[in-house]
Amino acid sequence: MPKNEPVKSPTAHGLDPRALGYSASIAYDRRLYRQDIRASIAHARMLSRQGIIPEEDADSIISGLQEIGGEIEQGRFIFREEMEDIHLNIEARLREKVGEVAGRLHTARSRNDQVATDIRLFVMEACDGVAERVSSLQRSLLDLADANLDTIMPGYTHLQRAQPVLLAHHLLAYFEMLERDKARFLGCREGASELPLGSGALAGVPYPIDRDYVARELGFSRVSENSIDAVSDRDFLVDLQSAAALVMTHLSRLSEEIILWASGEFGFVELPAGFATGSSIMPQKRNPDIAELARGRTGRVYGNLLATLTMMKGLPLAYNRDLQEDKEQLFSTIDTLFATLDVFAAMLPRLRFNKERMEEAAEASYTLATDVADYLVRKGLPFREAHQIVAALVRHAQSVGLPLRRLGLENYRKFSPLFEADILALSPHSSLEARDVPGGTSPRRVMAALKRARGKLEG
Amino acid sequence: MPKNEPVKSPTAHGLDPRALGYSASIAYDRRLYRQDIRASIAHARMLSRQGIIPEEDADSIISGLQEIGGEIEQGRFIFREEMEDIHLNIEARLREKVGEVAGRLHTARSRNDQVATDIRLFVMEACDGVAERVSSLQRSLLDLADANLDTIMPGYTHLQRAQPVLLAHHLLAYFEMLERDKARFLGCREGASELPLGSGALAGVPYPIDRDYVARELGFSRVSENSIDAVSDRDFLVDLQSAAALVMTHLSRLSEEIILWASGEFGFVELPAGFATGSSIMPQKRNPDIAELARGRTGRVYGNLLATLTMMKGLPLAYNRDLQEDKEQLFSTIDTLFATLDVFAAMLPRLRFNKERMEEAAEASYTLATDVADYLVRKGLPFREAHQIVAALVRHAQSVGLPLRRLGLENYRKFSPLFEADILALSPHSSLEARDVPGGTSPRRVMAALKRARGKLEG
Amino acid sequence: MPKNEPVKSPTAHGLDPRALGYSASIAYDRRLYRQDIRASIAHARMLSRQGIIPEEDADSIISGLQEIGGEIEQGRFIFREEMEDIHLNIEARLREKVGEVAGRLHTARSRNDQVATDIRLFVMEACDGVAERVSSLQRSLLDLADANLDTIMPGYTHLQRAQPVLLAHHLLAYFEMLERDKARFLGCREGASELPLGSGALAGVPYPIDRDYVARELGFSRVSENSIDAVSDRDFLVDLQSAAALVMTHLSRLSEEIILWASGEFGFVELPAGFATGSSIMPQKRNPDIAELARGRTGRVYGNLLATLTMMKGLPLAYNRDLQEDKEQLFSTIDTLFATLDVFAAMLPRLRFNKERMEEAAEASYTLATDVADYLVRKGLPFREAHQIVAALVRHAQSVGLPLRRLGLENYRKFSPLFEADILALSPHSSLEARDVPGGTSPRRVMAALKRARGKLEG
Amino acid sequence: MPKNEPVKSPTAHGLDPRALGYSASIAYDRRLYRQDIRASIAHARMLSRQGIIPEEDADSIISGLQEIGGEIEQGRFIFREEMEDIHLNIEARLREKVGEVAGRLHTARSRNDQVATDIRLFVMEACDGVAERVSSLQRSLLDLADANLDTIMPGYTHLQRAQPVLLAHHLLAYFEMLERDKARFLGCREGASELPLGSGALAGVPYPIDRDYVARELGFSRVSENSIDAVSDRDFLVDLQSAAALVMTHLSRLSEEIILWASGEFGFVELPAGFATGSSIMPQKRNPDIAELARGRTGRVYGNLLATLTMMKGLPLAYNRDLQEDKEQLFSTIDTLFATLDVFAAMLPRLRFNKERMEEAAEASYTLATDVADYLVRKGLPFREAHQIVAALVRHAQSVGLPLRRLGLENYRKFSPLFEADILALSPHSSLEARDVPGGTSPRRVMAALKRARGKLEG
Repeated sequence: MPKNEPVKSPTAHGLDPRALGYSASIAYDRRLYRQDIRASIAHARMLSRQGIIPEEDADSIISGLQEIGGEIEQGRFIFREEMEDIHLNIEARLREKVGEVAGRLHTARSRNDQVATDIRLFVMEACDGVAERVSSLQRSLLDLADANLDTIMPGYTHLQRAQPVLLAHHLLAYFEMLERDKARFLGCREGASELPLGSGALAGVPYPIDRDYVARELGFSRVSENSIDAVSDRDFLVDLQSAAALVMTHLSRLSEEIILWASGEFGFVELPAGFATGSSIMPQKRNPDIAELARGRTGRVYGNLLATLTMMKGLPLAYNRDLQEDKEQLFSTIDTLFATLDVFAAMLPRLRFNKERMEEAAEASYTLATDVADYLVRKGLPFREAHQIVAALVRHAQSVGLPLRRLGLENYRKFSPLFEADILALSPHSSLEARDVPGGTSPRRVMAALKRARGKLEG
Repeated sequence: MPKNEPVKSPTAHGLDPRALGYSASIAYDRRLYRQDIRASIAHARMLSRQGIIPEEDADSIISGLQEIGGEIEQGRFIFREEMEDIHLNIEARLREKVGEVAGRLHTARSRNDQVATDIRLFVMEACDGVAERVSSLQRSLLDLADANLDTIMPGYTHLQRAQPVLLAHHLLAYFEMLERDKARFLGCREGASELPLGSGALAGVPYPIDRDYVARELGFSRVSENSIDAVSDRDFLVDLQSAAALVMTHLSRLSEEIILWASGEFGFVELPAGFATGSSIMPQKRNPDIAELARGRTGRVYGNLLATLTMMKGLPLAYNRDLQEDKEQLFSTIDTLFATLDVFAAMLPRLRFNKERMEEAAEASYTLATDVADYLVRKGLPFREAHQIVAALVRHAQSVGLPLRRLGLENYRKFSPLFEADILALSPHSSLEARDVPGGTSPRRVMAALKRARGKLEG
Repeated sequence: MPKNEPVKSPTAHGLDPRALGYSASIAYDRRLYRQDIRASIAHARMLSRQGIIPEEDADSIISGLQEIGGEIEQGRFIFREEMEDIHLNIEARLREKVGEVAGRLHTARSRNDQVATDIRLFVMEACDGVAERVSSLQRSLLDLADANLDTIMPGYTHLQRAQPVLLAHHLLAYFEMLERDKARFLGCREGASELPLGSGALAGVPYPIDRDYVARELGFSRVSENSIDAVSDRDFLVDLQSAAALVMTHLSRLSEEIILWASGEFGFVELPAGFATGSSIMPQKRNPDIAELARGRTGRVYGNLLATLTMMKGLPLAYNRDLQEDKEQLFSTIDTLFATLDVFAAMLPRLRFNKERMEEAAEASYTLATDVADYLVRKGLPFREAHQIVAALVRHAQSVGLPLRRLGLENYRKFSPLFEADILALSPHSSLEARDVPGGTSPRRVMAALKRARGKLEG
Repeated sequence: MPKNEPVKSPTAHGLDPRALGYSASIAYDRRLYRQDIRASIAHARMLSRQGIIPEEDADSIISGLQEIGGEIEQGRFIFREEMEDIHLNIEARLREKVGEVAGRLHTARSRNDQVATDIRLFVMEACDGVAERVSSLQRSLLDLADANLDTIMPGYTHLQRAQPVLLAHHLLAYFEMLERDKARFLGCREGASELPLGSGALAGVPYPIDRDYVARELGFSRVSENSIDAVSDRDFLVDLQSAAALVMTHLSRLSEEIILWASGEFGFVELPAGFATGSSIMPQKRNPDIAELARGRTGRVYGNLLATLTMMKGLPLAYNRDLQEDKEQLFSTIDTLFATLDVFAAMLPRLRFNKERMEEAAEASYTLATDVADYLVRKGLPFREAHQIVAALVRHAQSVGLPLRRLGLENYRKFSPLFEADILALSPHSSLEARDVPGGTSPRRVMAALKRARGKLEG
């Protein structure tokens, strides 16, 4: 076939236009062009090294591919739906460039192992991208904690004020979640880091290929051990979607808190200019849209996870075209994660907390009641008995409308003779200080936790 | 503000670029431009009729909106991300066209009731579009049934051949599923057909508006009864996603069957040229990619359903920005449905069944055993006893490797003296004839069912 | 076979114990015993009427079945796993009671159409049960609204105070959601109300049965039109799961609000004694556990919906054993719905609202800003211009720390000469009054809406 | 309080019966009794070692707890709904046994960190249980492969026969999937292996506890680093649900294949007696119910994953009662996994393959076409050109109804002069032999893979 003659897809040729429209993936899988070209170059190099194709053919193929990469980068490449997908678009263009020799590139491979290789390369990069962004967000959290080191807030259970905690301690809870997220994505990367190329359509290939060489060239840590599994496995995408669902779960919790804190009722935080939006009708509004959108997009990522699982359910081995559906969900999830992590990393350090209001709330609602019970325990009462005494004490204080610290020793002693003057020294601060255990909210522990966290990030 | 001076979004103005990028929806909600313009025109007309804005202002607004509609149709409209969404893009352009008067259009409405109105209009049209496409697919099924009127096939349970059925009867099972689907989408349409406009941000509006007029103009069947509910309700999208999930479930079942039937092992159907694809490596392949893709895309629609539900979970009233996430899932589902229904409607009539092979299979595997049991029942045996006798008979036939009809009367009589010569007349055809009950597979019933189905479609 | 001789399952006989344990469903499908017996009695009666089985046999069968029903009601029935499911357990017991004649009951039916019939009967009853409970909850909402007729609260968007609304109006938003829920469940009931019995294993039956008679006896509104579809259709369960998911979505929103309102920060509501729980460690806590559990159980129902859809995905026709998995999800969802609706109906009327605090909040945060803008519009300004002026006004008021009503006319007039003395009369109450449109929050409209709602409930 | 006086729940006391019924978890969380007792014993021991409670009190508590464990094991323990959950049931019983001293056990802990500890202990054991069962199933697969070492079958893509593979190679694909599953569950175990006890309600505890000691006693590999995170984190359950969803996905694929292979059309496998069920109406049926049920139960596990994620979405920190919903999903998933893995491990080794039929199919449908193309490539043609020539050759063979090996050299040479006599030696076996690459299906490679797999299992 002479150079530049119109090339036809070897697979989609003759398809009814509706069928072609239904099956073509070039509209979205073009995002894999870098991976596809990288993998093809490594494959061509290996074929030549192994004497499977002539060196000069490999050279033309590689130069051609590099040129194509440039064309795409520069927006000069014309993607054609009738060539179905990114693989055939690139192969067709290569044929226009180097002629029949292009046909040698598909020696010892199939689209089945080719696309699996491309997606794995994409996933490996994407995992790195997520991990970096998670680190940035962690850094934002630590900066925010550092900037609010002595801010006390009420810790909540059941959204009821429970006990005083340091805001920095609260923020570090998210640091821990993100730390797990990062580990999960590094695990995903390692799961993806297995080269399927060399598995052919499903059975392996009848050529003396060197899979280890290709794996090294492309940065895979190992080669797949079973060709049938290699072309039909998408576990690593479920792992990624599940890890992403957890990141979004964590950010949905943080979002919920930002929304609560920014409400008039809480009034704990002022949204930074640039990250609050107005209303088309209510001029006074400052809405926490970013947090709301992140919370809403959690659904999208859950949906992508379930779509990926559903796609796999009940498929016989090996490759089935259903698997084409893995990509849009993958891209949607990665785009959502990148954008959400980026915007939170930008927004968080600019949150302004209302220290006074938070501290006031930290002492309201009898949040020191547990400390009173613990006081009695230290005087020798079993905890349950102490708990009952303090419950009665709190009911009394509520009925007379007094906070605990204004109740007076005589009142305390009506409930237990064990109370002595030092009970009046109880304060949010003494409550914090007392929780001096590993993982606890005492200032000493929180300071150490911050330092350790910073160390992990820098390490 | 002089005409053509750069206009700023009243809400997104001053947003950090990352926040704007995260929250702008114009990239996808531009699909609502027709609905947005239609609703704005009806709103402007009503405002003028009610004397809320001057008639000449309404006229300029309406002409301006009509021009903008033309610009968008012709691809001449420049969508700007900094204007966030379709509503503000159109409003800003209107201001460029008609000046400050444009600002009167937002009287007595808010983006909250505006966007709810637009989506409902979109959904009403989309439901019509689904219903039409379902009807086309039903027509294809009936054509296919008509073209294969006397083809007998094995009916399956547990993917084991069970009893002979007519292929037309089998195809009509899908007609029934699609009939339910259509009814479900008409129900969705009716659910969506409730005008929220007039609810303002959440509390109603302080102008003497005429909501019924707007409803009539836009084709809504009623107005919403509670303003808070109206701006925060997305039930109709869950209804649509759920109805869509069932359509895809049904098509995933049909797809599975096409894939099975097209396999070498079944060999029941030949995929039409134009709807089978080749392999990049195996030249002999004719793959049922369309059916596989439809099966795989089922996951996507399930995912969209769950994303929509998750988005709504636990949201306080009224509008929250999370709700912006309703649209991409909606568009994704509608696009998937339209494309899948269209490609199946095109593919089905061109399927070529292998009548001989199907009939052969219809008699193999002792599919007439139930008929033998029913024969004994008609001779007076309780069904369970007859069942046990025939089970023994079949085990015997299997052990000697004979089909039932070559077993000979004497063999039958070894198992029961009730067998007489007429037992040898049992055949797939007699089995079909016997199932002459409403819903049964007898040719008479199937013919009537086909006629009734055709009547429903044409009616 | 003599009476009382040990009976064996015709299908599970010989199963490996692990296989039997894996496949037996009697542990949960015993819940269908009433439906199974009712349907069997109707079937036997029809068989006898049609002369398919002798009348005296039908009579023994029916008496036997009635006795068995009594045994089960009274807890005297021994369910046996080796008989697999409820159908075979009952049939085996029937044989113990009436001997071989029991075997006639399975004439002209199969477990495939039998179980589909049983589940549909169960669903029809369950839908009625949901509808009744939804009505009770609606009644509770109306009672609560009636008891708080003149309570004003801030309406929220983005969880920011937006505009004043009546609490009754807010509660009526939930009435509307529940009204849709009820309609949806009545639709589910109608979808389920199609008799599959008579479809046999999949092809219909070779006996002159009267399906319409059985349908009438059992309260079905029609008979199924295609036997293959009839035994493999579970659409009605997806409809139910989806309708249930929306009920839980609505209750999760109400739960979220109760949790917010009961927080120290909002302080809008006091949880009723009996519906708030304490803490094992913090004696002062009154936690909104019921609302939290309902919010959490939303996930369970979403999960059941997904499980049902996934079960159906890609199944070839007709019956496959996968379908057995429909029941546990169904029971789990119905139990969750019943319990959640019941506990909310009991809890709601006992909520005590803090009227003063709600009204105070209703005016704080410049919630009347929209009314100020609307004031200017009525003086002739385009809404957008008015919006900009009021935005500046609000920024000024915020900077000097004054609420709008204490700003003074001279200050107003600095922003627009259109302001006159009547601007000072703006109040939450005037704001409410002004929203006198269908669906709006004006007291007149809300009163009418309450009356209409009460009428719907009683109607 | 004297011994044996009726004890009241410190938290549920005074609850409305409907509220108690809605919130009590004892019906299912009783499964955690061993974990709860183990953790309490370790806690008591630590309290005593640290001098926080007297040694003799700790001793009574520990003996009491051990007795209670015995009572539960022996079914003599009376679980009471009014005590809500397993923790309070045990604590109340302890008080009956040892009196007020029991109240000391709750020193320095809260139900929030207690329940998190119990679930983590349960998960760690459950992960071990899954891993063991996965190993057993892998062993079954290897046994099955060993028993069918020289069986050739068609490898499929798109459910079309593609290329010959060894059955053992195909089975090893599942070995690989399960190997990943096992690794995933070991990862889950490690994720769960973090002690939350010592976090108190959310802020840490004001006692000099020794968390490392408790961790060592209970087999945790580390202590949690942030108390707020520790009581509100359920990531490890999402990890488990996601890992379980993949196990079920893999088994759903294997199930689909068993169902296909057992069909009359494939006829590849005979279901073992004991693992196939009959029909209530069709005496000839041998249904693959176990595989169908496993495929159907995949939905249940997907549903549990979604339920767990949905439960977490948007929850503010720290503990919320929604989290109680984590347990039923966990138990449901673990029970499903255990049962499914067990029944497959029992069933697989007893499958009987029809070697002749599989080999016949392995050569039918022109499965050697790729080998013919590769033949031409080895003669110097570019792969794409070879592919086109062979496509034409296959079309010709199909049109004359001949398999490739009966086509004759002269026919081959009509399509390319490169064909020589050795082309006629192509056979499924030569095709297998040629795929002698890592991961390929050549007998040599498969044998090595089997050996390596066996090594991993035994190692």
